[in-house]
Amino acid sequence: MQSDGSGHRSLWFDEVSETLKIIDQTRLPFDYCVVELDDLDTVCQAISSMQVRGAPLIGVTAAYGLALALRHDYSLASQRDAVAALLQTRPTAINLRWALERMELGLQHIPRAQAYRVALDLAGQLAEKDIATNLRIGEAGFALLQKLVAAKANPEAPLNVMTHCNAGALATVDWGTALAPIYLARQRGVAVHVWVSETRPRNQGASLTSWELARQGVPCTLVSDNSCGYLMQQGLVDICLVGSDRTTAAGDVCNKVGTYLKALAARDNQVPFYVCLPVSSIDWTITAGADAIPIEHRDPVEVIRVAGADESGKPCGVSIAPPECPALNPAFDITPAALVTGLVTEHGVSAATPEGLAALREKLERTPGVGLP
Amino acid sequence: MQSDGSGHRSLWFDEVSETLKIIDQTRLPFDYCVVELDDLDTVCQAISSMQVRGAPLIGVTAAYGLALALRHDYSLASQRDAVAALLQTRPTAINLRWALERMELGLQHIPRAQAYRVALDLAGQLAEKDIATNLRIGEAGFALLQKLVAAKANPEAPLNVMTHCNAGALATVDWGTALAPIYLARQRGVAVHVWVSETRPRNQGASLTSWELARQGVPCTLVSDNSCGYLMQQGLVDICLVGSDRTTAAGDVCNKVGTYLKALAARDNQVPFYVCLPVSSIDWTITAGADAIPIEHRDPVEVIRVAGADESGKPCGVSIAPPECPALNPAFDITPAALVTGLVTEHGVSAATPEGLAALREKLERTPGVGLP
Repeated sequence: MQSDGSGHRSLWFDEVSETLKIIDQTRLPFDYCVVELDDLDTVCQAISSMQVRGAPLIGVTAAYGLALALRHDYSLASQRDAVAALLQTRPTAINLRWALERMELGLQHIPRAQAYRVALDLAGQLAEKDIATNLRIGEAGFALLQKLVAAKANPEAPLNVMTHCNAGALATVDWGTALAPIYLARQRGVAVHVWVSETRPRNQGASLTSWELARQGVPCTLVSDNSCGYLMQQGLVDICLVGSDRTTAAGDVCNKVGTYLKALAARDNQVPFYVCLPVSSIDWTITAGADAIPIEHRDPVEVIRVAGADESGKPCGVSIAPPECPALNPAFDITPAALVTGLVTEHGVSAATPEGLAALREKLERTPGVGLP
Repeated sequence: MQSDGSGHRSLWFDEVSETLKIIDQTRLPFDYCVVELDDLDTVCQAISSMQVRGAPLIGVTAAYGLALALRHDYSLASQRDAVAALLQTRPTAINLRWALERMELGLQHIPRAQAYRVALDLAGQLAEKDIATNLRIGEAGFALLQKLVAAKANPEAPLNVMTHCNAGALATVDWGTALAPIYLARQRGVAVHVWVSETRPRNQGASLTSWELARQGVPCTLVSDNSCGYLMQQGLVDICLVGSDRTTAAGDVCNKVGTYLKALAARDNQVPFYVCLPVSSIDWTITAGADAIPIEHRDPVEVIRVAGADESGKPCGVSIAPPECPALNPAFDITPAALVTGLVTEHGVSAATPEGLAALREKLERTPGVGLP
């Protein structure tokens, strides 16, 4: 599976032009446009403007950004400056820090003149690792879906999965986290239907998730974020699967704003609520309370001005309030661990509790080769 | 107070042209446009297309629509047809039925030739009654706000009220239901700040509530529906005040889709959640379970296509997904009584329980002149 259904991952390095190629996600679903990034500045800009987004993809993109910086100047000072600049682009997703730490570790004790090539190799390894990780998350999540199908009164009816934002192939190098189990179900002939919440204010559900699901032939229905409680009240949701930008060692989940509201509705209607994430997005330093996670506040204009396309499919925007209207735009919220049925990682399903996370950490410490390089 | 800040109510009858004048709410906030309705068809169209909306305003508009139908043909058959057509326009708000029942009652035993003038008088009485009702709701709600102000650690800081959709002057003939307490607070020098959730898919928060609050000088901040849980988690909300399209005799509240999610977040964060409503919007026939309330499903294109204005302020729309993207558009949800701190009516604050509602009903039965005419 590849994110555009025609051979492209969400990101790839072109060895000929020595540029990082990305799908410009701000122009989907109306315009499929590949952009070449050839230096640190364009990579930073691509991350902060959300041409690439999604915690795992941000991490890999930043790794390539560091490599590109080292192509121009392979000094240690250049490396440090590049890491600092990349860390500034988005504050909430922890994969960014994780990926850059892995890169710095791999760049220790090497001849500086080789830094670019080594960095490029390391970034490539992170990209491959991301795909392998997502497939394992997909397998663990697929097992959950199978159990629900087996328990259904009518196993022929499609399983209704609700998701939020985009934790799909486009949020990663390929396959996605929350959508990986769905793509496996599709491949294996298990009927699944996805409720896609539009995910205001940036509408990643409408523009990215419904786009990639349609490309892969997964039936889905777009709904307003507001209607997700209603759908659960009506018994139309069998399971929620969402991603995570950062999960604490206590099991609290930071994800796209609005995730918390879905989790509340899920609990109120006895709908299982699972979070799919690579262990690289767990912040082991936060053991209690999620207040330590910096919540990014983006430009309020994103609330007032909605991006999309006009009737001819040409990109355009529309204001839903006058420009002088005060607005606030927090990009994430925290779903308390108590609302999370389980955490689906590449190492299986863990309880979203300090004990569950501690057991996962122990497992990781016993597993050789965990962490890169 | 009048909804546009310059002398207009949300609706008024022009005796010279014998037309019903309304503010076209589909064109706010960018275009203030008064539309004349002169027959049944234009009134039905205005209600179903949401040029007028809000449960109380729909009721009064329908009453005038019946009068206009009787101007053209004062027969009983014409009256019955008009009532049937008006009842078809929107299924969820019960005020529509209530207002039309009041009209039919008042039109019994009259010389048919006088039906138009009598109906016009009755509709005018309903309009005046709506304003008086809202002022009383405002007083009861204002008392709640005062209590919260008195209990604040810093009584100088503005009280943060969260609302949803538009239950303001524009949803009624004047003053509003959920916003009436806020307007009284503003008039009386009690500092209030309002979190306005945009209310997808029709964005009545962005286009109507923030517009009328700004006109009245009430500080407010527009936020995405998704961020409302985050704001409560951060302690930035002191109270939620919302309206209702229909409330059951058990205290369950049907209101604009997304209300339920706010109520869940309010409970999870110990934020009081009050529903402001005229007793005319209580459906006494539903004593248990709210499944009997028909939830309107509107055209899915409302989810896909966002209305607003371009950069020059000219009305336009933008698509957030391709037209072939499947979508679903339920317009209301049910907030279970257990999540409602209290019901604020023109008769004070009642518990959202069968007992609370029964006590309110007893009070109504003892009060002379309740109900019109």
